Amino acid sequence: MEQWDKNGQLKHLLTVDGFTQSSLNALLTQVDRFIDEQHRLRHTEDLKDKTVVNVFFEASTRTRTTFEIAAKRLSADVISVNVATAATAKGESLRDTILNLQAMQADLFVCRHSDSGAAHFIAKQVKPGVAVINAGDGCHAHPTQALLDLYTIKRLKKTFENLTVTIIGDILHSRVARSEIAALKIMGVKQIRIVAPKTLLPPMIEGNGVHCYTKIEEGIQDADVIIMLRLQKERMEEGLLPSLREYHRSYGLTAARVALAKKDVIVMHPGPMDRGVEIDSVVADGPHSVILQQVHFGIAVRMAVMAELIARNRS
Amino acid sequence: MEQWDKNGQLKHLLTVDGFTQSSLNALLTQVDRFIDEQHRLRHTEDLKDKTVVNVFFEASTRTRTTFEIAAKRLSADVISVNVATAATAKGESLRDTILNLQAMQADLFVCRHSDSGAAHFIAKQVKPGVAVINAGDGCHAHPTQALLDLYTIKRLKKTFENLTVTIIGDILHSRVARSEIAALKIMGVKQIRIVAPKTLLPPMIEGNGVHCYTKIEEGIQDADVIIMLRLQKERMEEGLLPSLREYHRSYGLTAARVALAKKDVIVMHPGPMDRGVEIDSVVADGPHSVILQQVHFGIAVRMAVMAELIARNRS
Amino acid sequence: MEQWDKNGQLKHLLTVDGFTQSSLNALLTQVDRFIDEQHRLRHTEDLKDKTVVNVFFEASTRTRTTFEIAAKRLSADVISVNVATAATAKGESLRDTILNLQAMQADLFVCRHSDSGAAHFIAKQVKPGVAVINAGDGCHAHPTQALLDLYTIKRLKKTFENLTVTIIGDILHSRVARSEIAALKIMGVKQIRIVAPKTLLPPMIEGNGVHCYTKIEEGIQDADVIIMLRLQKERMEEGLLPSLREYHRSYGLTAARVALAKKDVIVMHPGPMDRGVEIDSVVADGPHSVILQQVHFGIAVRMAVMAELIARNRS
Repeated sequence: MEQWDKNGQLKHLLTVDGFTQSSLNALLTQVDRFIDEQHRLRHTEDLKDKTVVNVFFEASTRTRTTFEIAAKRLSADVISVNVATAATAKGESLRDTILNLQAMQADLFVCRHSDSGAAHFIAKQVKPGVAVINAGDGCHAHPTQALLDLYTIKRLKKTFENLTVTIIGDILHSRVARSEIAALKIMGVKQIRIVAPKTLLPPMIEGNGVHCYTKIEEGIQDADVIIMLRLQKERMEEGLLPSLREYHRSYGLTAARVALAKKDVIVMHPGPMDRGVEIDSVVADGPHSVILQQVHFGIAVRMAVMAELIARNRS
Repeated sequence: MEQWDKNGQLKHLLTVDGFTQSSLNALLTQVDRFIDEQHRLRHTEDLKDKTVVNVFFEASTRTRTTFEIAAKRLSADVISVNVATAATAKGESLRDTILNLQAMQADLFVCRHSDSGAAHFIAKQVKPGVAVINAGDGCHAHPTQALLDLYTIKRLKKTFENLTVTIIGDILHSRVARSEIAALKIMGVKQIRIVAPKTLLPPMIEGNGVHCYTKIEEGIQDADVIIMLRLQKERMEEGLLPSLREYHRSYGLTAARVALAKKDVIVMHPGPMDRGVEIDSVVADGPHSVILQQVHFGIAVRMAVMAELIARNRS
Repeated sequence: MEQWDKNGQLKHLLTVDGFTQSSLNALLTQVDRFIDEQHRLRHTEDLKDKTVVNVFFEASTRTRTTFEIAAKRLSADVISVNVATAATAKGESLRDTILNLQAMQADLFVCRHSDSGAAHFIAKQVKPGVAVINAGDGCHAHPTQALLDLYTIKRLKKTFENLTVTIIGDILHSRVARSEIAALKIMGVKQIRIVAPKTLLPPMIEGNGVHCYTKIEEGIQDADVIIMLRLQKERMEEGLLPSLREYHRSYGLTAARVALAKKDVIVMHPGPMDRGVEIDSVVADGPHSVILQQVHFGIAVRMAVMAELIARNRS
């Protein structure tokens, strides 16, 4: 796969597939370096004189901002190219856009694209020494989100092997869920539970450590970690769901439902939250919520990934 | 109020209300530090390793640019988030947007919002050590504009107590005017004059050192400082004004009208100017105009405010 | 002309007109300083504490990105102002926009405008010590593109005087072609050939070392350098060309046509390419193509120009 060099070293971060437990652990260990004793993010020179190019073929201020902050904290020069409105609009191909930016001496591409596999395609185009991070491609993968969730769980729960992790929401269309499940399997969590209405459950996901539920109460019972997914409004229009109100009644995370989980359960959400739809405010802002810690760790995780890829390509 | 800590130190800059003459003077004195002997802006490290986030809920390239330049001259990492097109469009609340950016370790928020009070709301959400600067909220306040005008007057007129300051234009809808009048009162100027058609004069503004005029010639007579306001085209559509031509005839600043003021009168304008409407080119580019000096001092003032807030939050 | 001071030193880069062979050579020699032994762009401090403002009145992500990368590699603070959506939309004049940005202490303006002569106009407004680079104005000039093409030819062909250079495409509307032809004449290339359908050939261009062809095969015969131009789709709508397919059949650069040129011909294109229209992929990606080297050198050329202008204005 494009992600690894012949010595098994990480060249790009395209997906969590292919990681071993120890390689994931090694990466997670790197993250600590970017958080100081006061729990503040450090400012380092890991990417000094390096150029990071955010190529977003799909608008996402939030994700772009996280990578921009992470890269600047590493002292990189950061350029953001909103490709939807740029060269491709003039008929230039994705490959030409990338090759041009590479010729301008981009050292690291962070890309988001609505097509699954776009990041792999880009990784195939770049020359040795140039790294690619997948910041979300279609319904396929969003590996930094999975890594930051792993890191959050590791910080707060110490180990993975005894955990029951429940993921609730639109599993079928979620690149977050897809990356998450793969990562949790690799880390060897005891049980992964998926909760969704039948219309939003991917076929053939059951088994291999994954258990499916259509009743949220059953899925949450004794969970150590609850990961909520954002509900895309489009699902309603597609007729996959009756209404937001109905969805909240059946799958919204309320305080009463959280009470069914372990006493020290942590509640996670990749954001942006739709309060009152998939999650109640009392839960989002409540004592179990670690949602803002995820955001904070997310910067450190992206810093670690960028520093790692540049360091490997440097040597 | 959210702006001051319990020791009376400035935590945020939301409004000029609550400042004393000595606290305003102390802040204005700081500004000198950012201008060198050649009258050039300095480049300092006051905000090194700090992250400034411009959150603009209302588009304003001009104001955003001034804060971006000021922050970069202080060596900050600067991120601009155009929130109109970002997370809130996905249904995220203003509070969640701010809390997320704070979790990414924003040290300073510069915000503009069409709702009065938005900056105060944001200041209430952030944790200790994070500062908020109001870059304009609805018709309410625009304190850095008021400060830069004060600084300009101080540089060019040395003292405030003997001055007659005339503000001309759409006082009713102007957050600039509101902040300006408050600031001038605090500094103890001898007389503040307001000139506007009746439809654009706020009710109950007369008194307490403020004098209202509907005839521009009377308002300008012997003035030391003339502050023009930008005329929003929307006022015509709302039926508050007959026409641009009519407005210019009655309230436009012509050379003949400037001649009624003191010989050494200075003419100010917050920009962008509508030449031929509220101000004639011969005046805008004439010997009394200090409009471009305002812009120059505006960067230094914003640098001083940012440096001050970060320094206080640091200690 | 605005471009030179009274000692004949470059103050702005607005056009290649007025350069001598030795002044162009002097500038090209500077470029080497920004490329290291590993053919990588250097990171220097030539523009440390300086502020570069990209003022783009015409959207161009590609060109803006090249200048942004170049300025950041020189350690400048870079601000990009998309003026189409900014102050001018509020009725502010181009002159006021520039004077305001100058008052904020912009040291260098990079501007693109759809009107020919806009860069000259801007250069007339700025005060001594502030430099202007024309990044394309209407159909008039695009001098940094001409310079990067010269630099590419110089690197790869060593000398100019024995070269036959063929420019193919929409000469009539191309600011690239206009700047290119002027630059090649100054450098004293043996022969400049222009290939275009009659509707896209400027009148009175023949002579003075320039030869016109309407048959591409004749124009390419024994050429040392082929410079392709981008075909604007608008030309079809204007009735100047029958169809893309027809254009490709008559003027597209195919491998068979390249074979008519010298064995060591180099093929250039300013980008973005429209593969299958003006150039075939087998040529664009083939052994004669130096298109990506142009992009790479383009950053170094822009760094050299910026460093030069700032250094001269500094002394």
